[in-house]
Amino acid sequence: MSNNSPVIRHALNTRRTDDFAKWYQEVISAADLAEESGVRGCMVIKPWGYGIWERIQRLMDDRIKAAGVQNTYFPIFIPLANFEREADHVEGFAKEMAVVTHHRLIADEKGGLIPDPDAKLEEPLVVRPTSETIIGDAMARWVQSWRDLPLMLNQWANVVRWEMRTRMFLRTSEFLWQEGHTAHATREEALEETHRALEMYRACAEEDLALPVIAGEKPENERFPGADETWSIEAMMQDGKALQAGTSHYLGTSFASAAGIQYQDREGTQQLCHTTSWGTSTRLVGGVIMTHGDDDGLRVPPRIAPYQVVILPMLRDKPEDEAVLAYCEEVRARLATQSSLGGPIRVLLDKTPGKASAKRWDWVRKGAPVIIEVGPRDMDGGKVALLRRDQLWTVETGKPAMDFVDREAFVAQAPALLEDIQTTLYAQAAERRDANITRGITEWEAVVSHFKDGGKYPGWIEVEWSKPTGAALEKVVERLKTLQLTIRNVPRDADPASGSCIFTGEPAVERILVARAY
Amino acid sequence: MSNNSPVIRHALNTRRTDDFAKWYQEVISAADLAEESGVRGCMVIKPWGYGIWERIQRLMDDRIKAAGVQNTYFPIFIPLANFEREADHVEGFAKEMAVVTHHRLIADEKGGLIPDPDAKLEEPLVVRPTSETIIGDAMARWVQSWRDLPLMLNQWANVVRWEMRTRMFLRTSEFLWQEGHTAHATREEALEETHRALEMYRACAEEDLALPVIAGEKPENERFPGADETWSIEAMMQDGKALQAGTSHYLGTSFASAAGIQYQDREGTQQLCHTTSWGTSTRLVGGVIMTHGDDDGLRVPPRIAPYQVVILPMLRDKPEDEAVLAYCEEVRARLATQSSLGGPIRVLLDKTPGKASAKRWDWVRKGAPVIIEVGPRDMDGGKVALLRRDQLWTVETGKPAMDFVDREAFVAQAPALLEDIQTTLYAQAAERRDANITRGITEWEAVVSHFKDGGKYPGWIEVEWSKPTGAALEKVVERLKTLQLTIRNVPRDADPASGSCIFTGEPAVERILVARAY
Repeated sequence: MSNNSPVIRHALNTRRTDDFAKWYQEVISAADLAEESGVRGCMVIKPWGYGIWERIQRLMDDRIKAAGVQNTYFPIFIPLANFEREADHVEGFAKEMAVVTHHRLIADEKGGLIPDPDAKLEEPLVVRPTSETIIGDAMARWVQSWRDLPLMLNQWANVVRWEMRTRMFLRTSEFLWQEGHTAHATREEALEETHRALEMYRACAEEDLALPVIAGEKPENERFPGADETWSIEAMMQDGKALQAGTSHYLGTSFASAAGIQYQDREGTQQLCHTTSWGTSTRLVGGVIMTHGDDDGLRVPPRIAPYQVVILPMLRDKPEDEAVLAYCEEVRARLATQSSLGGPIRVLLDKTPGKASAKRWDWVRKGAPVIIEVGPRDMDGGKVALLRRDQLWTVETGKPAMDFVDREAFVAQAPALLEDIQTTLYAQAAERRDANITRGITEWEAVVSHFKDGGKYPGWIEVEWSKPTGAALEKVVERLKTLQLTIRNVPRDADPASGSCIFTGEPAVERILVARAY
Repeated sequence: MSNNSPVIRHALNTRRTDDFAKWYQEVISAADLAEESGVRGCMVIKPWGYGIWERIQRLMDDRIKAAGVQNTYFPIFIPLANFEREADHVEGFAKEMAVVTHHRLIADEKGGLIPDPDAKLEEPLVVRPTSETIIGDAMARWVQSWRDLPLMLNQWANVVRWEMRTRMFLRTSEFLWQEGHTAHATREEALEETHRALEMYRACAEEDLALPVIAGEKPENERFPGADETWSIEAMMQDGKALQAGTSHYLGTSFASAAGIQYQDREGTQQLCHTTSWGTSTRLVGGVIMTHGDDDGLRVPPRIAPYQVVILPMLRDKPEDEAVLAYCEEVRARLATQSSLGGPIRVLLDKTPGKASAKRWDWVRKGAPVIIEVGPRDMDGGKVALLRRDQLWTVETGKPAMDFVDREAFVAQAPALLEDIQTTLYAQAAERRDANITRGITEWEAVVSHFKDGGKYPGWIEVEWSKPTGAALEKVVERLKTLQLTIRNVPRDADPASGSCIFTGEPAVERILVARAY
């Protein structure tokens, strides 16, 4: 370390560049987002983590309602028969479901509890891994005529997929999500809805979560079990891996056929409906962490921050404490009447016991966008000490970039400040994403060397292919697997293909994104 | 039927006074609130029913957050060991829990699916009936010092209690609820929180749902399993039965002791925390139906109505349709900018196909507080046809009490109109409740005759008792059971006792509410 570059003492022990996986776990713990529950594969979402999810929910729900989709609630238990009738679907899920077999416990001879053998269910019930089949049953009852269409439903729910390897927020046995399910008269209308949902996800990810994403269609081998088309948004994490952050499926008529979702058209003929489904989950919180986190913890984009501004009074158990608190309370009250990013500013005056400096670092790790400190001297000068979480350090000094600003000016500029932080986080992530997508690779050998010699974080590549299917696609998938790569999607907005397929040498028909992925 | 009393042709087939249980089911179906799912004991909550629940959630959540309680999410699965360590608690729940024993399905020889014998869980998991034990585990990890207290958590979740007899919204195997869980340093603080939650429930029931309730303590035999004190709010349904609409429990130190929730006090001594829990559920929707429903369907109080005003254009597939729609759209837009009852007016312009008169009756059955119809003649006169759902009929004529009002005046008065409907629904329910509580009964014989000869809906009685415990209380409970009666609670605001116990003849110590109940 030279004398010219002061050492920044970061708030975390692990650097992103040293051990990204360990860093991820440390952020979750240091930002107080979640923890292991002791129940296999299930996590506890703590208040700050849940607060972020609630914000995402609220913003997504507003978008869902604005599209005319109605919220509902369907049972958590699904009869086995529902899975038996949709062969592709059960094939995709059967390996990882929680099965309820008894409805009572009794004491055993040792005083412990066991499932009561006399209370065995005649037919076991599955804890929903997703609700296509049970919502399909309802759609079959509710849709009779073309007048009943489109039927557009959504639910916010917990689902369970028994996972062998879990990672908090990214892959847990139980997770929270929303699942949209719609039925339409025609293929065209169902495809339109598939794309509307995809576009909604893109907008929510980019505008609300500040996650730049690439929307596109999944290849055949990555389709939702039973779907005709699966589309996704893919976000790039700071280790260059891809995170599938939302999916939208055109299900054709296969689920309608299995569940009997039919309507009488205007001519009096019975027709099968075309259905869609689409979902996003608490996984999005993992995406926020791995996109916006830094070596000091999380940085929460203001739109989804439970608190956008946190005020820390510097109290010393002295008589002037009361005046400092009153001064802080006035700042809080005035901020709360201001609007920014579509709603009143969410501001917390943190009066919990403890030293302001320790609390500052707690809020840095949690990633509150703006931290304000007020001591007696700031008060006397009519000022506040302002820390922007996204510009934490003064590089020249290695010290926190604390800015002493006039209170009035701060209050007046707070809305613009939050908007700027939101924009800055997005711009940083977009720049990193764009810098890490490599285009123009035309030979498989170059793919191999890119990912073998491309440094620790080789990012994504966009290559052309001939869109092989069936066994030919399987060969491609296997070849990619040797480099731990998968096809993420066919970007909706990519240039048309102009060369030959990197796998088969045949004329290419489209471009695909290839990456390592979560 | 005499010539003087015109026949009102109600929108439902069943009158409340003819068959209340059948009427209840008919309202749920006619108002499109929910339906049986085909999965044992579980219902599907349809958009209008779920919309009401979402409104209740939002209003309750605002109250919960305002109290400084933080939302979280805990796993749906609870290990058996958690239940084994709290004997009273498991005694109360063990009989009705869904038990997960396998984590995979495989195909059997007939092509059906069965739980995979190779995927049996080492320890079965229980689908949470309530989360005291698993949240207690987390509290034990999170609480170290007096500085960590109070710890006040809440979660919105689904829970499962295997019920033999189910009734939609009132008792279903799966239901939606919120459960608050708090830990405090002292008994006094925990009791204060128990009462804060109880008072929050009273306020939410009365102010938001327009459900008059009586808050009070449950007798010993009705306590939550493991609790020291259980408090409830009780609402009177139109058949005179009681509905427990929310409960708040002071758990003493028993859950803290079982889970190890301890803190170091200011003197450095380890102390057990005092904990509370409190919950309300989708059952509240059942209470709204049985309190505000009438022979034409549901009447939704404006504060919890997904739409407060529904506008129905009368279209005839003629050129002037467009002008009518534009006129309706203008009314909609102007209403939506107005505030009433704490938020912008929620207004729907219903453009779905169908005749306006048929749609009118759909919305009457659903209970939208205000229904507006607009035809070409209304438009030409600058008017709208207004139907107040709580004053549906002109008794003199037997016709819907449609009021033709100036559009400008209607828009200006809409906020006050909604407030008046909210107030009116509460006043009607409170009047009925007050008229149906009988006080002054001092002999058991009079109780018997009151409930045997007191007509179809004998309501509630408030009597004095000596608060027997243990076996003496059991005898009282058994005696009440012969009349299908239960003790609802000891009203918080009742007069002190002045006479003798109606059961034992001993000097009375307090007054209790006795009623038939859901």
